[in-house]
Amino acid sequence: MKKYLVMALMMAIGCTAIAQQPVKLPAPNPLKASKMSLMEALQKRKSVREYSSKEISLQTLSTLLWTACGYNRPDEKRITAPSAINAQDITLYVCMKNGAYCYNPDENQLDFVSAEDLRPAVAGRQDFAKQAPICIVLVSDLNKFRSPRAEFGAMDAGFVSENICLACTALGLATVPRASMEKETLTKAFGLNENQVLMLNNPVGWPK
Amino acid sequence: MKKYLVMALMMAIGCTAIAQQPVKLPAPNPLKASKMSLMEALQKRKSVREYSSKEISLQTLSTLLWTACGYNRPDEKRITAPSAINAQDITLYVCMKNGAYCYNPDENQLDFVSAEDLRPAVAGRQDFAKQAPICIVLVSDLNKFRSPRAEFGAMDAGFVSENICLACTALGLATVPRASMEKETLTKAFGLNENQVLMLNNPVGWPK
Repeated sequence: MKKYLVMALMMAIGCTAIAQQPVKLPAPNPLKASKMSLMEALQKRKSVREYSSKEISLQTLSTLLWTACGYNRPDEKRITAPSAINAQDITLYVCMKNGAYCYNPDENQLDFVSAEDLRPAVAGRQDFAKQAPICIVLVSDLNKFRSPRAEFGAMDAGFVSENICLACTALGLATVPRASMEKETLTKAFGLNENQVLMLNNPVGWPK
Repeated sequence: MKKYLVMALMMAIGCTAIAQQPVKLPAPNPLKASKMSLMEALQKRKSVREYSSKEISLQTLSTLLWTACGYNRPDEKRITAPSAINAQDITLYVCMKNGAYCYNPDENQLDFVSAEDLRPAVAGRQDFAKQAPICIVLVSDLNKFRSPRAEFGAMDAGFVSENICLACTALGLATVPRASMEKETLTKAFGLNENQVLMLNNPVGWPK
């Protein structure tokens, strides 16, 4: 009995160790992933609150995270979304069934944040959101401005979230930007300080 | 002499009367105006602060305003940009050499606001912005939310402004979203109340 307990413990530790490794993302492939014109995406953009249980591949996720605020001019470290004084203050947290990760565009990987399924905390009282295989949470680091300005962070979150909305449209995915979430739980789980502010989230899934 | 003075006065009155009429816009033609893919637009999106003196046609302006927050589902009065609780709180003010107008998507026209060239007030201390033939100013009407929430207005402005940024990229136009402007002057000139808040502006022109 004791032997099995030790084995189970070792397995648990082992799994945690594996989970805590960064998840390398395949290179984003935006031009291959969708040829939908911007204008068509604008015509089709809508908020969708129902998602199928189908998973999203790491390849699609990589492309989606790039569209949000990845480097579109890597040599200058400039990104797809504008930001106040080019602060690039928005960090993306990716909440999935098997844990939460932070998008690291420099390494094109997901850095481990939590082994918990935090989608219920993102959903709050709106159950539909936790059905999405992925909830992307947008956090603004107000310390990146000359003085902490929450309205700049909110605008910058808007830029990034709209990129996600349009990219989902072009990729055949469904999403809706939401401001409500359990902020206290997520602040703690992500290990945020008082100037790292939860702004918006985008549950993302395939349409039902 | 007196006769000419009267004529000049009449002309001035006449011109004002003409200027104060709404400017009907041609129907937006997004699908014809650009075939650039969303992904290419995201790859090319950048902030541009230099504009040529070339004018922007009403046709292009009509398409651009539609991309920002025009109706993409006219039957349901739903728009290209998401907004908190579908408040559709963002109104666009279009400042040009010959005056300022308010985008009226229901009539697809520009409603007269001021005969003044307000681009210098939009530019503030950043002279480059007043060189743009058009400055689009994004105002959030916080009264449209259940309770006035400036951060919702800021996020909603971000969604709309990113649509403008991407559409400019796809249309070959240049822009940069800016939060700075002479707010007191513009609040007065646009006739805004305390809950109609100047959020962002996008000077728009052809690249130099």
